[in-house]
Amino acid sequence: MAIDVRKIRVLFFDVLGTVVDEAGSVADEFEQAVHDATGQSGHGKPLAATWLDECTRRLNSIVAGESWAPLEEINRLALATAVEQQGLTVDASALDRLALVTHRLRPWPDAASALRVLSERFTLVALSNATTAILADIGRRGALPWHCVLSSELVRAYKPDPVVYEMALDLLRVEPEQSMLVAAHPWDLRAAAQQGIRTAYVARAGEGTPEPTDVFDVEVDDLAHLARTLID
Amino acid sequence: MAIDVRKIRVLFFDVLGTVVDEAGSVADEFEQAVHDATGQSGHGKPLAATWLDECTRRLNSIVAGESWAPLEEINRLALATAVEQQGLTVDASALDRLALVTHRLRPWPDAASALRVLSERFTLVALSNATTAILADIGRRGALPWHCVLSSELVRAYKPDPVVYEMALDLLRVEPEQSMLVAAHPWDLRAAAQQGIRTAYVARAGEGTPEPTDVFDVEVDDLAHLARTLID
Repeated sequence: MAIDVRKIRVLFFDVLGTVVDEAGSVADEFEQAVHDATGQSGHGKPLAATWLDECTRRLNSIVAGESWAPLEEINRLALATAVEQQGLTVDASALDRLALVTHRLRPWPDAASALRVLSERFTLVALSNATTAILADIGRRGALPWHCVLSSELVRAYKPDPVVYEMALDLLRVEPEQSMLVAAHPWDLRAAAQQGIRTAYVARAGEGTPEPTDVFDVEVDDLAHLARTLID
Repeated sequence: MAIDVRKIRVLFFDVLGTVVDEAGSVADEFEQAVHDATGQSGHGKPLAATWLDECTRRLNSIVAGESWAPLEEINRLALATAVEQQGLTVDASALDRLALVTHRLRPWPDAASALRVLSERFTLVALSNATTAILADIGRRGALPWHCVLSSELVRAYKPDPVVYEMALDLLRVEPEQSMLVAAHPWDLRAAAQQGIRTAYVARAGEGTPEPTDVFDVEVDDLAHLARTLID
């Protein structure tokens, strides 16, 4: 590791996919819901994948300049599209409940205990495209020891828009080189690095793979590995 | 208690004075600093009291319409005024350090464990005039299990300005009657009640006393007492 860890005071964490198993939690909940509604099995994973793709597409449109909408609305519209694309019939009340699935995502098994270890040495900040309300629910259910939770909704934008990282540095009163973003998505880390923020890539199945040209300050298998790397 | 506690999902907490012993922490640190600088004792308490009064005066001016300034600046200017009013001489580097005292406030003895108990049942949100950076430091040092931390700086205002409570309700996606503000300051509770938020008054020495006309939903001696009252 080329950087001086002693200079780092604040760790920013991407949450969806990095701290919580978004794809797995969503697939399991969708599988159960479709089974309850239709008696059919095997629809959860493809529906979840289509939904997540559609959410990403809509977020990217906003980053590219389309007008901002809260994540709840994006999730709800994306779910209607995904259900239709998958040729499923799900009643309205089940759809309403499924659209709120992001509030119920479960942490990866290593997350809570690794965050507790890291919280002794660093200021831990959730920095997410999820809303404040979603982040509060995820934190409460998973007993995640955040010192602070920053949603990109505070600046009506979404990562990787630079204004999100600038907001985080500004609110924490921290210089970029005193901070590090921990994320499973190379696009998120590249955008943070553009602001001078240090980067830690966490390999999470299905969340993204670095390009050969990507260089991150730290690359780890999970958050327990990150804790061992940053604290020794 | 006339309200139905089962309806409450979110507890908003005032922090300075309610969760942390602001007056005591500041007086102790000021006492030590003046003693180190001058060899004199007994200046800590009056200096702290003058400083806190001066901070409050400046915050109230902003609530009354003066242009917003970040708390760090208010604290620094108020300290310079207080030091002068008390006829003390403190060198610039000591003043710089003292102006950051709010980052180092210690929780009241009952706070951390009561918050842990309450965190099992409610979403716990710090709602404070302290900045995000200060709240993150206080939370880290005190191991306070916040699910979310909301500084009034997010709307460039200070409590009791109604926009602060409106922001909190909006970001948590909660109806006023599903939330409660916990505070040691009647002025804060009165402003929250104006928005329909439930109110819990915590008696903390020196932080404020209800008027005979004040009616709060809950009145408790400390946060342990609050936990026993809301969870039984």
